[in-house]
Amino acid sequence: MPEANSSDNRRGGVLALAGGVGGAKLAVGLARVLPPDALTVVVNTGDDEIFYGLHVSPDIDTVTYSLAGLANPETGWGFAGDTFNALGTLKNLGADTWFGLGDHDLALHLRRTDMLRSGKTLSDVTLDLSRRMGVRHPVVPMSDQPVRTIIESDDGEMSFQEYFVHRRSEPEVIGLRFDGADSASPSPVFKSALESPNAIVFCPSNPFLSVDPIMALPGVREMIAVSDIPRVAVSPIIGGRAVKGPAARIFQTFAQKPPSALAVAEHYEGIATHFVMDNKDESSRVAVEALGYEVLVTETLMTTDAHKIALAIEVCGMAGVPI
Amino acid sequence: MPEANSSDNRRGGVLALAGGVGGAKLAVGLARVLPPDALTVVVNTGDDEIFYGLHVSPDIDTVTYSLAGLANPETGWGFAGDTFNALGTLKNLGADTWFGLGDHDLALHLRRTDMLRSGKTLSDVTLDLSRRMGVRHPVVPMSDQPVRTIIESDDGEMSFQEYFVHRRSEPEVIGLRFDGADSASPSPVFKSALESPNAIVFCPSNPFLSVDPIMALPGVREMIAVSDIPRVAVSPIIGGRAVKGPAARIFQTFAQKPPSALAVAEHYEGIATHFVMDNKDESSRVAVEALGYEVLVTETLMTTDAHKIALAIEVCGMAGVPI
Repeated sequence: MPEANSSDNRRGGVLALAGGVGGAKLAVGLARVLPPDALTVVVNTGDDEIFYGLHVSPDIDTVTYSLAGLANPETGWGFAGDTFNALGTLKNLGADTWFGLGDHDLALHLRRTDMLRSGKTLSDVTLDLSRRMGVRHPVVPMSDQPVRTIIESDDGEMSFQEYFVHRRSEPEVIGLRFDGADSASPSPVFKSALESPNAIVFCPSNPFLSVDPIMALPGVREMIAVSDIPRVAVSPIIGGRAVKGPAARIFQTFAQKPPSALAVAEHYEGIATHFVMDNKDESSRVAVEALGYEVLVTETLMTTDAHKIALAIEVCGMAGVPI
Repeated sequence: MPEANSSDNRRGGVLALAGGVGGAKLAVGLARVLPPDALTVVVNTGDDEIFYGLHVSPDIDTVTYSLAGLANPETGWGFAGDTFNALGTLKNLGADTWFGLGDHDLALHLRRTDMLRSGKTLSDVTLDLSRRMGVRHPVVPMSDQPVRTIIESDDGEMSFQEYFVHRRSEPEVIGLRFDGADSASPSPVFKSALESPNAIVFCPSNPFLSVDPIMALPGVREMIAVSDIPRVAVSPIIGGRAVKGPAARIFQTFAQKPPSALAVAEHYEGIATHFVMDNKDESSRVAVEALGYEVLVTETLMTTDAHKIALAIEVCGMAGVPI
């Protein structure tokens, strides 16, 4: 007789796709209303970069720190109360220090890099380290193979960190590539979560830079597009502006249209079935519905944990996910 | 016409061989009384070890921090006022943290490792980093190739750091090897300093663990033994005890003789010509002289910079080096 398994009679829970700070906030809300076996957070790794020989995974870290309650509440990324003593010395010793690695943060990158070097996959390492930080829900890199988002700009090609952190999003984005995506695979947990989720949630992350790298992995876009489950996209654009990061600017320069909830909805057309947009964008509701979406207009700015939980409850309700 | 060169008419200055804290102290004294072009400090790298993928050179760092005035005055090693925030996180993340790397210290190891990875030699990296810390005298690794001191103990083989730091010198040392020494070369600056020094100084470092690895490099022992210049050994054993570290214990268990200035003198027989021992060991003067040494009995415990300078002046005087 097979062992009893509480999940035999249910699908694989909510599959949330996330990138940086906005995505991490909704992930926190979802994790507060769903048990660990009913939520898988798959995170963009296209922005990963090597600093001083260390493997830095900014989006994984933002999601992990957020879920662990360790994130810097002022920035949404980095380790709360981190110090920057090593960085000061690195600068004195002639290193480039435009990427602000804190001391606690450095320790995480050291440990990750050391574990990867020992032959573990990024999935294994991410699960182990997030568990040690107290995270109970699975945080999963989109792939265990390297995928690198390359910004093609009016000032040449560069990595996302180079563009966003070092160059402060100043170059004009004229193209985007996800190097390595063609030959990478979705990570094993992502692949299995893709097979039978209750719902998919596109967190309010940058559609071009946080979600598209995930969608660029072989088979992912197709599997999501043909699935028969609710797929909820939450707009990261509120009132024509991005809460954080370069999304608005990239709509303008790369997608060549004004940043708006409607533009986000157009971006997810054929992929998502449900669309969540802010009260500020109420006037676009009809236009978004005309694209075929079931639409929810609500408060989407998550400045407190209460906001994160409220939005997560609304997203789950819309997708018919029991909480 | 060749360029004027102030060193055309003189030999290469003092070549000091050093290991950890005791050696670093005399190096500080020598650096205070000799100009940068009259002193080369060659440092043991047999204790180098990889932690979290980072190349740590404890003896080079102790000498460099000391010469830069940055060493922790309480321990003699490590960075004064260093913090240990990364180490705490590393421990929380499951890493072994018996080697106490501070945050400033970590930055140095990160930078060193990154520069080595880019193809620079340990000599180049050491020179660059020590200059950036404000050190004016050349600090030189004994070799650019890896040499690893292996402690053969009653509890198996281990690296020096494992023996000294992790195991607190508790295993009984029954043998010592310098893996890689046979196929390593003295570093280029060491090699050229060996060719025409005014004098050689064996700093008061552990003879077995700090100086012998240097002497084990091909040709070094022979070149020093046959040279016609003063070679001054300073005893690290005072009154039968080591000021710091496992030297006394190693005399007992490995060399099978009680630790004493006389035992140190016997160790350097045929290598050194001059011997400096502490007032506490006055009673051994005749026995040491009987080995053929010119002997100086003086205050050798260096608890202040004044002591370091006073001892350096006496060592230079004994070796006929103008200061």
